[in-house]
Amino acid sequence: MEQEVGGSRPPSCTKKMNKEKKLKPSKDLPLGFVDRQEKELLTRDFIISNIKEVMIKYGFQYLETPSFEYTESIGKFLPDKERPDQGVFSFKDEKNWLSLRYDLTAPLARYVAKNYQEISKPFKRYQLGTVWRNEKPGPGRYREFLQFDADFVGTKNLQADAELCVLISEILEKCGLSKNDYSIKISSRKFTENLFEEIKVKSIDQTSIILRALDKIDRLGWEEVKKILGKGRKDKSGDFTKGAELNEKQIELIGKKIDDKESKTEDILKIIKIFDAYGFKNYKFDPSVIRGLEYYTGPIFEVNLNFDVKNSKGKTIKFGSIGGGGRYDNLVSNFGNLDCPATGISIGIDRLVYALMQKKEFNIKSTKPVVICTFDKESIKIYVDILIKLRSADISAEIYPGEGNLKKQMQYANKISSPAVILYGENEIKSGKATLRNLSSGKEISTKVENLSNEIKKIF
Amino acid sequence: MEQEVGGSRPPSCTKKMNKEKKLKPSKDLPLGFVDRQEKELLTRDFIISNIKEVMIKYGFQYLETPSFEYTESIGKFLPDKERPDQGVFSFKDEKNWLSLRYDLTAPLARYVAKNYQEISKPFKRYQLGTVWRNEKPGPGRYREFLQFDADFVGTKNLQADAELCVLISEILEKCGLSKNDYSIKISSRKFTENLFEEIKVKSIDQTSIILRALDKIDRLGWEEVKKILGKGRKDKSGDFTKGAELNEKQIELIGKKIDDKESKTEDILKIIKIFDAYGFKNYKFDPSVIRGLEYYTGPIFEVNLNFDVKNSKGKTIKFGSIGGGGRYDNLVSNFGNLDCPATGISIGIDRLVYALMQKKEFNIKSTKPVVICTFDKESIKIYVDILIKLRSADISAEIYPGEGNLKKQMQYANKISSPAVILYGENEIKSGKATLRNLSSGKEISTKVENLSNEIKKIF
Repeated sequence: MEQEVGGSRPPSCTKKMNKEKKLKPSKDLPLGFVDRQEKELLTRDFIISNIKEVMIKYGFQYLETPSFEYTESIGKFLPDKERPDQGVFSFKDEKNWLSLRYDLTAPLARYVAKNYQEISKPFKRYQLGTVWRNEKPGPGRYREFLQFDADFVGTKNLQADAELCVLISEILEKCGLSKNDYSIKISSRKFTENLFEEIKVKSIDQTSIILRALDKIDRLGWEEVKKILGKGRKDKSGDFTKGAELNEKQIELIGKKIDDKESKTEDILKIIKIFDAYGFKNYKFDPSVIRGLEYYTGPIFEVNLNFDVKNSKGKTIKFGSIGGGGRYDNLVSNFGNLDCPATGISIGIDRLVYALMQKKEFNIKSTKPVVICTFDKESIKIYVDILIKLRSADISAEIYPGEGNLKKQMQYANKISSPAVILYGENEIKSGKATLRNLSSGKEISTKVENLSNEIKKIF
Repeated sequence: MEQEVGGSRPPSCTKKMNKEKKLKPSKDLPLGFVDRQEKELLTRDFIISNIKEVMIKYGFQYLETPSFEYTESIGKFLPDKERPDQGVFSFKDEKNWLSLRYDLTAPLARYVAKNYQEISKPFKRYQLGTVWRNEKPGPGRYREFLQFDADFVGTKNLQADAELCVLISEILEKCGLSKNDYSIKISSRKFTENLFEEIKVKSIDQTSIILRALDKIDRLGWEEVKKILGKGRKDKSGDFTKGAELNEKQIELIGKKIDDKESKTEDILKIIKIFDAYGFKNYKFDPSVIRGLEYYTGPIFEVNLNFDVKNSKGKTIKFGSIGGGGRYDNLVSNFGNLDCPATGISIGIDRLVYALMQKKEFNIKSTKPVVICTFDKESIKIYVDILIKLRSADISAEIYPGEGNLKKQMQYANKISSPAVILYGENEIKSGKATLRNLSSGKEISTKVENLSNEIKKIF
């Protein structure tokens, strides 16, 4: 910790830029990255504080792994075999390859392996963290997300799986969602295992193409997914997705099975029994829930929002999944002969923020400062005295931070949506009374400086 | 927002690893990156919540720019010319170079340029965010830090500079530091400008070597810094730092000037007047404060902790700077002819966390769950009922999440530092009374299930 960092503010390439006057740095952001504004951030903070409260109540440990891992530790590539060279952001270090984490599960497996002797068994941890995907940029496709993960490591007890669904529900309801606003779909990897046996698919390549294809039913519809199960599919942009080369009979059988809501596996029956003990009803067994990833070994879940949300083009859409998870009993054993069954759930916080901000009932409060206008630079002490009085009363306040005249100051106060300005010019100072102008009503009152705090609190 | 992310949990390279059994992924982290545990994270949350409260009170907007920027927008390299190919993590996209931000100031300049028409003038924003430095890894040198920045953009008003110092003080005191625990050193880039004129240094290369050298006085001492001002310096590892090639007379004059605490510049005199109006006394004019960066144009500040802290080897050290900042009136203009004077401050949150955790008076509370032991898997409903009762009373609780016998369950409860376990076996169920064992005192009581919450609250 000898290193000093906070205050080191390195310059951009100032000198060079000044010399080559035509070469201006870009004002834009790379595709897939966005600036986030106050309302969104406050909504996110609200969700995060609910998550933390629930996590404490449920007895999870708070842990944070770093953004970077050795590439070999987390697997270099995402499973999207359509773009094998993409998926993660990787950097060559002096000797090794480092990658930005693409999820919080692979780093957890590394953490557990590294600290296997020290951690409790089972080990329950939660994490909030940014993950990065080096995906093909496109409209609405982001390359940086905030994720929340909760995991039970070192237990096969299905109560863990059940409790993940229960805790997500508690978080969503704490955020203001009603039981109609969301649902949790559950299925099991055992179901697809049985299915693969029945249609006689054995190759790993084929099974992973099938899993990823089935995971896209919600987005593409069954007719398009059928193409991927067969010869392959060309999308609108002309990109081709390799097919699983199944025959019509096999595809038909898959279609039938995933529509059969009664074909519950043993693990699902057990989980449902635990749900009953919790009085937890907001789930749905749905064998069409696939989760496109290979490493699941048992129950899988998907968290869906059911209320209407407008997309960036203003079109009303079914929002769908904000996350999910499942049991992954073999992941940690990649690091050695560690027997470490596990189950976990991930929520995409940015997606939840986006949806929550569109709920009518939801309204996050963003506090703007009262602006104290300045008339005479030499009288700074007078204005600072008012400022300190307001802030001591926990009122958000500032002295106009610029150098403009009163007109500019009023423009500024309106621009930042200030609730009120305080005018304390020569005449006011003489009379000993400041003018408080409410900027939403336009009304003004004249009041002693000592009374300003009370008058302002009436406005809020 | 059509993209689904939260629940996508990509596998590590499972299949491949299983085939090549000898090739195990590394359990270690790359140098310069660390896992962070609960106590540290809770301390960080405590600091962050204090920061947010103060920022609201001072009327700053909450903003977040993304981790990546176009490399050209933030300048590809840190100013550390000793290692010109290092400094930032950069990544070649399909067409462009992207870099992980190395600070929050360069992205702010990009944001202001991009949104120049829309933002208020002046514009006050704060940001909390991770920054990355691709530095030579070594003991105690991290490559990922959490930073807090507050900036005033679009004003030359020195009240902004003064208020940055005042607000940092308020944050530190809210975190529990006393006035003796910290101090803010101020100086001005005007001071070094005058100095350079006096010793007749004009080349940009020479001035930047001198600035960076003077910034190291605290760490290396004046004798070592003199070497860099002269012919250059070889450090213990053998790395050579190029010298500024000043002669002895010039070096002597520098030494004299930076010891002269009375040589205040005009801007400093003005800021001190504003400090007086605030009644703010916890600053020190210190011309030896340099801040190694070229882009400062006026007042500069440095925030120092004065209490003893132990380093990772247990040695007591003077902790020193946790951040600083200054006025940078020309940075935004790199993006075009935008007249945008600005001033800002950065705090290294991880360093503040590290120091704060070592303060005797500081004690962050970490809540651990009460563990409900299980005796009979078929009686899950009985245990869930207890669990729900406790959680409804806002008690952190869990049913033992594993599959072990009672001995294992007790080991688990002790391992996670649980405050208490609840035993409700066959005999207890018959008598209608559960056993509550306080794990720190070892005492047991027998109580009705309905009374458990009250009894547990007595323990906490």
